[in-house]
Amino acid sequence: MSTRREFISNTGKAMVAGGLVTLTENETPHMIENKFIHHVYFWLKNTGSKEDRAKLVEGLQKLSKVTTIKTFHIGMPADTNRDVIDRSYAISWFVLFDNAADQASYQVDPIHLKFVEECSHLWSKVVVYDSVDVK
Amino acid sequence: MSTRREFISNTGKAMVAGGLVTLTENETPHMIENKFIHHVYFWLKNTGSKEDRAKLVEGLQKLSKVTTIKTFHIGMPADTNRDVIDRSYAISWFVLFDNAADQASYQVDPIHLKFVEECSHLWSKVVVYDSVDVK
Repeated sequence: MSTRREFISNTGKAMVAGGLVTLTENETPHMIENKFIHHVYFWLKNTGSKEDRAKLVEGLQKLSKVTTIKTFHIGMPADTNRDVIDRSYAISWFVLFDNAADQASYQVDPIHLKFVEECSHLWSKVVVYDSVDVK
Repeated sequence: MSTRREFISNTGKAMVAGGLVTLTENETPHMIENKFIHHVYFWLKNTGSKEDRAKLVEGLQKLSKVTTIKTFHIGMPADTNRDVIDRSYAISWFVLFDNAADQASYQVDPIHLKFVEECSHLWSKVVVYDSVDVK
């Protein structure tokens, strides 16, 4: 408990060793800065296939071992359902890189190439959004 | 320096006060867990209008004050350009909530309602992807 408090008060900002920290309630929210956000949405070829979905998730778990990946999330659509929400995808893949060069290196990393080789037959569609800080 | 090291080694895992920490190189990457990811992409009505883009960014900065927002990012398309990448949006808005209830409360928060009132005329299209941990 005291360690956490000291840590947060000592640093003042929510930055740790090149990374990010989200804060407890009533703290100022943390703005992600100077990172490269890579967010991918997959649609399965065999829509609704639990087996293919599990294979893709397993593939992403292996893919998370790429060393330039600092933070990641393997997701599925939440229960929210409004007109503007696209909940038709099967699996989402969120990655936070330190910079664009790390993302570029990830694209040609042997682990990534193996993922594409082993898993690309599973999806019919993939959409990628790469974002950097607005200027 | 020692504080950082102690902190990381004391906790063992990359969790701080309900939040997340990304790690330095050679550390195990951090998997976001038990969070609600809300990622929104905006297309401007006046495509290429710097003024409208600035208004939207300003609106999102105000929106970030909603208290259930723990971590956020205001983004624009990175320089990456491949067939699967959608880089046609103008502005992206990434929010990490602690849970689905916090996201639901954000939707009806007065700050959010004011954002919609003040800014919705700026965009022609908005796409939202809400994601939770894959099960």
